[in-house]
Amino acid sequence: MASTHFVAEPRVPQVVMTREFDAPREFVFRAHTDPDLLVQWFAPRGLIMTVDRFDLRDGGTWRYQYWEADGTDYAFHGLFHGEPSTNGIVQTFEFEGRPGHVSMWTVTFSEQRGMTLLTHNIVYQSVEDRDLDLRSGLEESVSDSVDRLDQLLARLTPVS
Amino acid sequence: MASTHFVAEPRVPQVVMTREFDAPREFVFRAHTDPDLLVQWFAPRGLIMTVDRFDLRDGGTWRYQYWEADGTDYAFHGLFHGEPSTNGIVQTFEFEGRPGHVSMWTVTFSEQRGMTLLTHNIVYQSVEDRDLDLRSGLEESVSDSVDRLDQLLARLTPVS
Repeated sequence: MASTHFVAEPRVPQVVMTREFDAPREFVFRAHTDPDLLVQWFAPRGLIMTVDRFDLRDGGTWRYQYWEADGTDYAFHGLFHGEPSTNGIVQTFEFEGRPGHVSMWTVTFSEQRGMTLLTHNIVYQSVEDRDLDLRSGLEESVSDSVDRLDQLLARLTPVS
Repeated sequence: MASTHFVAEPRVPQVVMTREFDAPREFVFRAHTDPDLLVQWFAPRGLIMTVDRFDLRDGGTWRYQYWEADGTDYAFHGLFHGEPSTNGIVQTFEFEGRPGHVSMWTVTFSEQRGMTLLTHNIVYQSVEDRDLDLRSGLEESVSDSVDRLDQLLARLTPVS
């Protein structure tokens, strides 16, 4: 299995994750933009994910929740800047448990020889916000998620 | 006149501008959110600014243009994340002359003893994007603009 790389430099409010998949970029894009697929890989392991809103268009808003077995939930919301496409997805991101702290995610899908390089580029309003995410286990959680994405992609079939 | 401060560290995709004004924060907020006021100070000196769209609400979009005397125009657009208020404004920002490069602006207004500390916190997708803005004269242009904002604030009167 390919490995997941992170760049998170000291005193820089940014995390860049890259991972290569043995799948066409249309599949990787679909796994990011079809809510029925997204919930199968995106949440941290052990949590159930549900999607409240997912209006995939320029200016559209999204909101999803992660659920613990005991009913505790963690909600997140944001909006899409620009028309989401295989050229990229730009969206804002806010954890409702820490309102007022917003990050911007840029997801890109670069295909070469049938492989797709996925990049999640997250920029934060401050280094403190970024460091809080890192201390909360962002890298482990995302590594876990993209491992599940890898397994999901192997099950997808082309759609015409 | 108060001076404008910038923090733009090497290899960090961020610029933070701060400036103190002798005005209540409602005035500074109004100058950022009333398009008729915004066009009086926000554009670089020598350019005319017009506002195409300014839907000031969570999920609303905005677009404005700067015009040279010869009719050349520079257009920008983005959207508001969260409800804009005197607690802050978060918006995405894209220069249409360089599509696909998006930054996120957080504007905050902190009032103390009748003075307002304005902060523009800009985070970019990359250091290259940030450096291009700096090389294009961002600091000089913004300093100029906020000097004009200072003059505008002195002319505003309270609204009930």
